[in-house]
Amino acid sequence: MSDPLRLGIAGLGTVGVGVLKIVRDQADLIAARAGRPVEVTAVSARTRDKDRGVSIDGMAWEDDPVALATRDDVDLFVEVMGGSDGPAKAATEAAIEAGKDVVTANKAMLAIHGQALAEAAEAANVVIRFEAAVAGGIPVIKALTEGLSANRIERVMGVMNGTCNYILTRMEATRQGYNALFEEADKLGYLEADPMLDVGGIDAGHKLALLSSIAFGTRVDFDAVQLEGIQAITLEDIVQARDMGYRIKLLGVAQMTGRGLEQRMMPCLVPAGSPLGQLEGGTNMVVIDGDSVGQIVMRGAGAGEGPTASAVMADVIDIARGIRVSTFGQAASGLRQVRAASSAVPAPYYIRMALLDKPGALAKVATVLGDNGISIHRMRQYDHAETTAPVLIVTHRTTRSALDEAVAGMLRTGVVAGDPVVLRIEEV
Amino acid sequence: MSDPLRLGIAGLGTVGVGVLKIVRDQADLIAARAGRPVEVTAVSARTRDKDRGVSIDGMAWEDDPVALATRDDVDLFVEVMGGSDGPAKAATEAAIEAGKDVVTANKAMLAIHGQALAEAAEAANVVIRFEAAVAGGIPVIKALTEGLSANRIERVMGVMNGTCNYILTRMEATRQGYNALFEEADKLGYLEADPMLDVGGIDAGHKLALLSSIAFGTRVDFDAVQLEGIQAITLEDIVQARDMGYRIKLLGVAQMTGRGLEQRMMPCLVPAGSPLGQLEGGTNMVVIDGDSVGQIVMRGAGAGEGPTASAVMADVIDIARGIRVSTFGQAASGLRQVRAASSAVPAPYYIRMALLDKPGALAKVATVLGDNGISIHRMRQYDHAETTAPVLIVTHRTTRSALDEAVAGMLRTGVVAGDPVVLRIEEV
Repeated sequence: MSDPLRLGIAGLGTVGVGVLKIVRDQADLIAARAGRPVEVTAVSARTRDKDRGVSIDGMAWEDDPVALATRDDVDLFVEVMGGSDGPAKAATEAAIEAGKDVVTANKAMLAIHGQALAEAAEAANVVIRFEAAVAGGIPVIKALTEGLSANRIERVMGVMNGTCNYILTRMEATRQGYNALFEEADKLGYLEADPMLDVGGIDAGHKLALLSSIAFGTRVDFDAVQLEGIQAITLEDIVQARDMGYRIKLLGVAQMTGRGLEQRMMPCLVPAGSPLGQLEGGTNMVVIDGDSVGQIVMRGAGAGEGPTASAVMADVIDIARGIRVSTFGQAASGLRQVRAASSAVPAPYYIRMALLDKPGALAKVATVLGDNGISIHRMRQYDHAETTAPVLIVTHRTTRSALDEAVAGMLRTGVVAGDPVVLRIEEV
Repeated sequence: MSDPLRLGIAGLGTVGVGVLKIVRDQADLIAARAGRPVEVTAVSARTRDKDRGVSIDGMAWEDDPVALATRDDVDLFVEVMGGSDGPAKAATEAAIEAGKDVVTANKAMLAIHGQALAEAAEAANVVIRFEAAVAGGIPVIKALTEGLSANRIERVMGVMNGTCNYILTRMEATRQGYNALFEEADKLGYLEADPMLDVGGIDAGHKLALLSSIAFGTRVDFDAVQLEGIQAITLEDIVQARDMGYRIKLLGVAQMTGRGLEQRMMPCLVPAGSPLGQLEGGTNMVVIDGDSVGQIVMRGAGAGEGPTASAVMADVIDIARGIRVSTFGQAASGLRQVRAASSAVPAPYYIRMALLDKPGALAKVATVLGDNGISIHRMRQYDHAETTAPVLIVTHRTTRSALDEAVAGMLRTGVVAGDPVVLRIEEV
């Protein structure tokens, strides 16, 4: 058996504590699988004295994660602090410069600085692995980078923010509105310190940008992800969607089109009976279409101490075994800078709007759609006690740009109150 | 870029041809991901001149796969001939002895000779990879060996024979009996040359034995797999199961129990709404429960040219990248020989039998169950035009041994015609 692999862990929150527990509880199993022991030699966190339910006795303490990352007795730097910049980035860069491999759960840092970090790692001949950054315990980074490496990837799709899926499925189950469930999620500790990371789709967008890079051999381009959060989704949208055989999911889709790479993270209607449509609560699902393999679906817990630590430690064991893979699956210099395509792939759309109670209002809206070349698949107008009447329209396949023009036209008619809700119907 | 990795491919059936096509069509993508080109230098098959839809011009030809496996211009031996012994085994052994890495799709060979081959590979410092041997294109060997390596695996479960799932789901869809669908599957070319490999559960049993070894760090023990095929399943079983909210699947389950390692591959009732219950046609699904990660579900095509070749080539690209993992995820010498447990885990059971039209027949059967400590959850007796009456019983949780004794007791009462069908109800 070879020398132990010595970890330095920066961040002792949920994930860091989970990693410490696995190293402690599964030492024999890890040593057998890795072919060498794995041990934690040093840790760093905001607060030293705190009951974390796991002992850090015998491990060196560093207040400064940069100092931790560069210690001589650390072979591998485990970054589980989070935050796209600041200490996480500084310590990661220092680790790379000091010739240490890096395992991180930090989707924000990689989505924003991934290319630079990958290039630095390559120059220093170290690896950066980040299984825990996407879809929690689901080994999807490995599946995409290695398990499906012989495929030209056609599409990557997924529900990758458990908090949003929790809110959406609980809205349906409890018949409560968005605000009530947002508060419930907050009380349960499901929300990030900045809740927009979750409900604004930013966290899930970071994850999608990472998957895109691996899938299509492109430079991570988070800025090109079309982002929409779930804040505008009402209980009525959920009920109406369900009534038509759909469920609403915060769905990420990345695909290469003739016009460039399309990456979108937004609430969509998906068939209720599809695997994505059936996804409940905090569970994540990633769907990968490859030219040879067809469709692969992976499902599992998207967050939590155990699942996330499982992913971190899988990367650690890989490195202990001598598995060394380029950050995004190929040389960083070879990753292409591609054009971003915006909703190049046509789809049917769901539109909900409130019409003012004026004669001919519905006809005006329908005319605008027709003028923009959009045909209507279904339309429903409801009686309401209010002065406006809710109208739902499901269109046939159209482009987002045609739809956006139509919506602008509708607003100009003066019969639409407020902003219409427009949701793509994804054929999964 | 490094030197090309040179493949020698033995077997140019569906899988071999699929591999040739990927090497030809995805050369650039593979070179970028592997960091070096992959090329095929030599091939071997039963017939040289045959239109395979892909050219073998420029590749050396060998009639003898052993000669192929040991050629100086072959770095990696790709064994896609099949068969547990004979040429496949001889060539694999020769390749290992000659210091060549091996990628194989051969579940039978590994299920029976896996330990010896793993030891030989270790001694020769070569690797054997076999992603394509289990669940076609689903990267489940990689997920279990690497992606979930930090977990103590609690259970591995799966539908891993597409032909059986095709027959079972088509019986339900078309309301035809087993024999009609067996013939349909045969006409479609879905059956192995020896159909018992499929419908007898042997092929799926081989796959389960391989997953068990990785999951539990044990020596492959195919002989310990409790095997039952799907031949006894009638349309009535399928209809009745469905009526009770279940579907019948040829389901493999491996779990470590207090009494040893339990491995069973047999038709079971699973909840119709569960991911396994919803699996249609030739699709495969593997469900892995780990102590940290919770439950991971993976779904994809279980067979076919593209999916299987995708898995073979993922192994090839891994090796081209320098990824070297022990055959069953840890040193072969460290794999434990464990006791086989037979149905140690209790479960409810479904029993269908034909009762002779005699007074008190049903009471006799119920008494025998009670005498064996088995309580009845549901029971149905149907009117029938025949001289026997079909009776269905769903028991509460019990052990298989108690149930087997009860069935023997029922047969001794003289009121049961033929052999009862007994199916486990798996709580998935």
